[in-house]
Amino acid sequence: MKVLYPTSTKVDTSLLEGFPTVTFHAYDPRSPTIPSDLLDAEALITWVNTPDNLQFARENMPKLRWIQSLAAGPNDVLSAGFDPTHVTVTTGSGLHDRTVAEHTLALLLASARRLYEMRDYQLQTRWPGHLGGPQPDRPAGRFTTLRDARVTIWGFGNIARTLAPYLTALGATVRGVARHAGVRGGYEVVSDDKLPEVLGETDALVMILPGDPSTRHALSRERIAMLPKHAWVVNVGRGTSVDEEALADALEKGELCGAALDVFETEPLPETSRLWKTPNLVVSPHAAGGRPQGAEALILENLRRLLAGQELKNVI
Amino acid sequence: MKVLYPTSTKVDTSLLEGFPTVTFHAYDPRSPTIPSDLLDAEALITWVNTPDNLQFARENMPKLRWIQSLAAGPNDVLSAGFDPTHVTVTTGSGLHDRTVAEHTLALLLASARRLYEMRDYQLQTRWPGHLGGPQPDRPAGRFTTLRDARVTIWGFGNIARTLAPYLTALGATVRGVARHAGVRGGYEVVSDDKLPEVLGETDALVMILPGDPSTRHALSRERIAMLPKHAWVVNVGRGTSVDEEALADALEKGELCGAALDVFETEPLPETSRLWKTPNLVVSPHAAGGRPQGAEALILENLRRLLAGQELKNVI
Ligand SMILES: NC(=O)c1ccc[n+]([C@@H]2O[C@H](COP(=O)([O-])OP(=O)(O)OC[C@H]3O[C@@H](n4cnc5c(N)ncnc54)[C@H](OP(=O)(O)O)[C@@H]3O)[C@@H](O)[C@H]2O)c1
Ligand SMILES: NC(=O)c1ccc[n+]([C@@H]2O[C@H](COP(=O)([O-])OP(=O)(O)OC[C@H]3O[C@@H](n4cnc5c(N)ncnc54)[C@H](OP(=O)(O)O)[C@@H]3O)[C@@H](O)[C@H]2O)c1
Repeated sequence: MKVLYPTSTKVDTSLLEGFPTVTFHAYDPRSPTIPSDLLDAEALITWVNTPDNLQFARENMPKLRWIQSLAAGPNDVLSAGFDPTHVTVTTGSGLHDRTVAEHTLALLLASARRLYEMRDYQLQTRWPGHLGGPQPDRPAGRFTTLRDARVTIWGFGNIARTLAPYLTALGATVRGVARHAGVRGGYEVVSDDKLPEVLGETDALVMILPGDPSTRHALSRERIAMLPKHAWVVNVGRGTSVDEEALADALEKGELCGAALDVFETEPLPETSRLWKTPNLVVSPHAAGGRPQGAEALILENLRRLLAGQELKNVI
Repeated sequence: MKVLYPTSTKVDTSLLEGFPTVTFHAYDPRSPTIPSDLLDAEALITWVNTPDNLQFARENMPKLRWIQSLAAGPNDVLSAGFDPTHVTVTTGSGLHDRTVAEHTLALLLASARRLYEMRDYQLQTRWPGHLGGPQPDRPAGRFTTLRDARVTIWGFGNIARTLAPYLTALGATVRGVARHAGVRGGYEVVSDDKLPEVLGETDALVMILPGDPSTRHALSRERIAMLPKHAWVVNVGRGTSVDEEALADALEKGELCGAALDVFETEPLPETSRLWKTPNLVVSPHAAGGRPQGAEALILENLRRLLAGQELKNVI
């Protein structure tokens, strides 16, 4: 059985050896084709493949039965249209937990501490005195620190489980929203129907939702209106989960305090987008993840399960 | 015995009651004088007093024997020239740990994740593609994440002890430098003589030194040269502890990667300073602390010790 791994990231195949019937072969996921001697592979590991490359794989790999994406949200593979009755797609959820959680924390702190505004002043050679010196301590109705802040994480999966303890350590109170309610890792997680209540009690809303039809414009105009005026929105999931026009409207009208977005409905963000200049909106260029960590352990586990006829991990 | 407390921050005197001989009186620390009926006070609590106000206190409060500053680094009180044989000055070290540690973390993450550069691009309506999308994971010789980064905290006091565990949680390896070597809270702390070795093994140097003669230009030209080219410097202690000209030279020549400064030799940073435009230099307007937390507990403890004739806490 041939397993193809991409040259776009480091995969140490020595950590995958030991299965007598399995061979590993590198391929270039940015190439429009895949070499003909590899087209009988049964497993394809993907990472930043071009749409062309995925199309080619779909049309020319008849024995393909497993795609292991190293992306937590493999929207590229899903839109390539592999036949789900023959090909199982598994995600790289878990490989980006620490990088995305770190970037999310960076965006939250930059929002609370107004680092973007300090930078704007610096570029004009101006000292932003109002942001330094004596300050009110945790003033009511403002998001100035994570200490005692109420943070809601919408999409409480692998990344959220890594992020939440960082926020707790800094003194925030964390709640989650997901499809299934319950307590996870000590955090209360509620389902959608509790959103009106939870959003109203939120100082910072962190969105870490996948980009599928069920999450499209999850943060709608109506739900943005449920947030307090002083709240911030940080989105590191997928751009489609936020109604960007409604968000920009709310920020311009002062109905919401700020937003730090790492993901957008269209990426790169078009030059014509109003988001570039929306007040208190911070643009981060899909920079949270982008570097899978510990991919071999996930590949190994799923390869073992495939050979054993067991259910794979992270099936979409 | 009269204790004067400042109106510049909230002091809940109900938390200080219970000493039969002690009375508490509010005063305005921004006023050039102190009301005549309060001039026989023995204790003065200070917070963002004007130089005038402190001069007035020095000249007109003959019974004064204790000044409790709420600042961790009470340089204002020290320069007012109270007679140290009569007046004991105690600092507010401990009241700013969480706020300064949080801001330091914000600056470290903004540095590693290049948030300031993203902002520069945003203001030009440009997508900084090189900062997003697929990235090398923890590349050698670059400071891109706290995970596996070697962080050195120079000045390992109260603030550092709060900061260090945040950095550990994010995957950094933390060492301290202070006057006295030893292990503190599980962290290795070395003394000055180990600096050549420690600085050479540092990805991010956090300076949290007090501003006294012993720390003047502690980070000198010579010591900046000991840091790796890819290192970052974050200073949240006092501006005088860094040779700013040497720092700017190193950044301009690419001998150091970047710096995020919350404190400066002159504040506000003069319009003519070259630091505004030094590459990869982030200007934060002395914004880390500025809001004492839990002041009553410190005042209470020191008041009790004063009345009991015991040594005060945080004596300079
Ligand atoms: N910005 C970046 O660079 C970057 C990097 C990596 C990942 N991401 C994005 O982050 C997303 C999450 O990653 P992850 O690894 O944490 O995924 P995960 O472990 O699969 O978690 C997804 C979470 O979203 C919840 N969810 C899914 N659909 C929902 C809906 N319609 N309504 C409410 N909640 C819903 C799930 O609820 P249940 O737990 O109840 O099922 C789960 O808690 C990825 O899909 C990807 O799009 C972005
Ligand atoms: N940016 C802001 O808004 C802000 C806010 C609050 C405080 N600060 C500054 O931060 C400073 C530190 O605050 P803290 O509460 O952490 O103080 P702290 O608990 O007194 O700690 C000071 C540390 O510096 C070390 N140190 C002092 N002089 C030294 C020298 N010459 N060489 C090497 N190490 C030296 C001490 O070493 P030993 O432990 O060995 O004695 C100690 O570890 C304050 O003095 C203040 O200037 C800034």
